[in-house]
Amino acid sequence: MNLLKQKIVTEGKVLSDSVLKVDGFLNHQVDPVLMQELGEEFASRFAGEGVTKIVTLESSGIAPSVMAGLSMGVPVLFARKRKSLTLTDHLYTAGVYSYTKNETNDISVSADYLSSDDVILVIDDFLANGQAADGLISIVEQAGASLAGIGIVIEKGFQNGGDVLRGRGIRVESLAVIDSLADGNVTFHTKEASL
Amino acid sequence: MNLLKQKIVTEGKVLSDSVLKVDGFLNHQVDPVLMQELGEEFASRFAGEGVTKIVTLESSGIAPSVMAGLSMGVPVLFARKRKSLTLTDHLYTAGVYSYTKNETNDISVSADYLSSDDVILVIDDFLANGQAADGLISIVEQAGASLAGIGIVIEKGFQNGGDVLRGRGIRVESLAVIDSLADGNVTFHTKEASL
Repeated sequence: MNLLKQKIVTEGKVLSDSVLKVDGFLNHQVDPVLMQELGEEFASRFAGEGVTKIVTLESSGIAPSVMAGLSMGVPVLFARKRKSLTLTDHLYTAGVYSYTKNETNDISVSADYLSSDDVILVIDDFLANGQAADGLISIVEQAGASLAGIGIVIEKGFQNGGDVLRGRGIRVESLAVIDSLADGNVTFHTKEASL
Repeated sequence: MNLLKQKIVTEGKVLSDSVLKVDGFLNHQVDPVLMQELGEEFASRFAGEGVTKIVTLESSGIAPSVMAGLSMGVPVLFARKRKSLTLTDHLYTAGVYSYTKNETNDISVSADYLSSDDVILVIDDFLANGQAADGLISIVEQAGASLAGIGIVIEKGFQNGGDVLRGRGIRVESLAVIDSLADGNVTFHTKEASL
């Protein structure tokens, strides 16, 4: 994933020891060529797992997920952060605390689009404390679906979300793992991200 | 756009004379193959317009926009419906009233990613009363950028947003135009959507 790491280094902005802003290519402005590459990489890593559907979270998870869905030939379901008037009944819901925004939001998925026959790949843009991933996993569990694993674009390896998930036996594939943002510098994890 | 119209007829749910729910392939669950087709169609219709960037609105505009951006070789900028703590300074903002949700939300774009040199294609999932399109156009104007036109996945031709925009001389390309949802049936406009 050289293109991703290159983008992080050249276009990412380290705002503090724990905050990396990647609004230039992932969270606000989106680079479609990079998204395609990320999608193909997720598809490659989870090939042969029998994935039937990708579940992600609006908004920043959508672009890499749709590209992964295209590569894998499966639909993408994005959880919504608030209910809309045209999405009312049969919801699976989980509470997700955001450290960045200092608030808890419910995320919801219509039960119409998840079944116990599904094998789900969860994809998200960031993994830090694992709050969003926990919420998405809860939704998969509520549906009685199987979890093939979690695909993450950027994991903050210095926060414990990834370790906790892997400790639960969940396969987590992060395309870039950051060990440190100290002194304004991005230091990547040198081993394979899938450890 | 046979695939789109086919999806609307077979998977869309007509909830009233004015509400069409397409959560099965566009607004909640996303069909990546359809999104690719929509993206290529937008790219084809706006080829030669010198588009430098696509501007859309989270969340449902992202998937077709990223596919269009991939086809056109340009980045995609999605407006946010609320401010986040890591997106604070230099915002272009517009108020958008949602008839579906009966509320007004600010939508915002970072000024870092729009300049007066840009030629913008605005893409959105639905066009009804034109509130979201107006907001996105306002943001393009605040940046002093040029507007190549507006690409819409589904236009409700029985509401006046499209007519008003075209009356202002703006090119609107809708991939499906619905003339009526009366009696639970979807009736498509028979002429070219780009009139």
